[in-house]
Amino acid sequence: MPPEVETEREDGRRTRGRRTRASILDTAADLASVDGLEGLTIGRLAAAIGMSKSGLFAHFGSKEELQVATYFHARERFLAEVILPPREYEPGRERVDALVEGWLRYMRTDVFRGGCFFSEVRTEFGSREDGPVRQVVVKGTRRWLDLLARELSALPGDPEVDQLAFEIDALGTAANYRFQLLGDPAVFDQAAAAIAARLDAGG
Amino acid sequence: MPPEVETEREDGRRTRGRRTRASILDTAADLASVDGLEGLTIGRLAAAIGMSKSGLFAHFGSKEELQVATYFHARERFLAEVILPPREYEPGRERVDALVEGWLRYMRTDVFRGGCFFSEVRTEFGSREDGPVRQVVVKGTRRWLDLLARELSALPGDPEVDQLAFEIDALGTAANYRFQLLGDPAVFDQAAAAIAARLDAGG
Repeated sequence: MPPEVETEREDGRRTRGRRTRASILDTAADLASVDGLEGLTIGRLAAAIGMSKSGLFAHFGSKEELQVATYFHARERFLAEVILPPREYEPGRERVDALVEGWLRYMRTDVFRGGCFFSEVRTEFGSREDGPVRQVVVKGTRRWLDLLARELSALPGDPEVDQLAFEIDALGTAANYRFQLLGDPAVFDQAAAAIAARLDAGG
Repeated sequence: MPPEVETEREDGRRTRGRRTRASILDTAADLASVDGLEGLTIGRLAAAIGMSKSGLFAHFGSKEELQVATYFHARERFLAEVILPPREYEPGRERVDALVEGWLRYMRTDVFRGGCFFSEVRTEFGSREDGPVRQVVVKGTRRWLDLLARELSALPGDPEVDQLAFEIDALGTAANYRFQLLGDPAVFDQAAAAIAARLDAGG
């Protein structure tokens, strides 16, 4: 067999492997958005995707590796749904509005089965012992808050960006928990109104 | 033995039984504030208090019963720490300020080992299937939001109490998760400043 055919076969295998992995992680992220990353076991995930435990172990050597891979996979979905679309606008109020709107829509439409994946795991790992998974959650949370602060720093009037980022993150996160627990989508309007009023007030 | 002595003995046994139960539930609430109510197993709790599993089963027939009892016990602690002290003031701004201050202090000082017990379980049960424990969490959350709204309705200027209650709950809850995950207590000052500004603005 000529070497280029061998290479094509290997490429094909690798592509299929990547697809399988991505589809496992899609399910894993949905499960974790409901039960948390600690609730995500190889056994439960294997059952959910109809694969054997040993088949899953071929993709992820340990629960911890699976948890970290699930987090990064969830972040890709968040990037595509929330972070990237507002970049069609220049930095400033319009882009901040698009970011907030996309973020609230992402929570309201259950992009992850249990609402915001990140809200779930931030609370889950908040007071747990330190470890590799918690460190990934901490780093990811800082990235989100930094991104929010950076977008807010483009607003006129030299706003206190950390304070403002704290408040916006708080209002959206609360809408998510209230919607998941109590079921009334009106909380997203309450969050949107509060954030808009806060941005209009500046400072 | 005269009947009154028998009664005293029974009373003594009952008092000891109540004390044991209360001390088990103290530990249970601390564990659940870190790992959630689903993470609270009879085995783990028995190990934490140095009691046998069968000894624990004598107090709580099932995991579900233990979870519900833990929730109600945690609520007693919350009542004593946060809800009751502000009642020395008449309804109005002073009482609202005392409530907010006590609530933030309760989170900052880790009255429960893992921060706010209620924040933890509200997120934990948000998207889980319905059941008796989830219903207790839903009812308790509504009680807290209703209490907040009732206190806010005593403020002058006919404020939109549901909107205001949503925002205050959001800001305090976010301070709790940020403090637990990232460790910086400055978030409580950010929450206090945002809530005071919001109350000053009224509406």
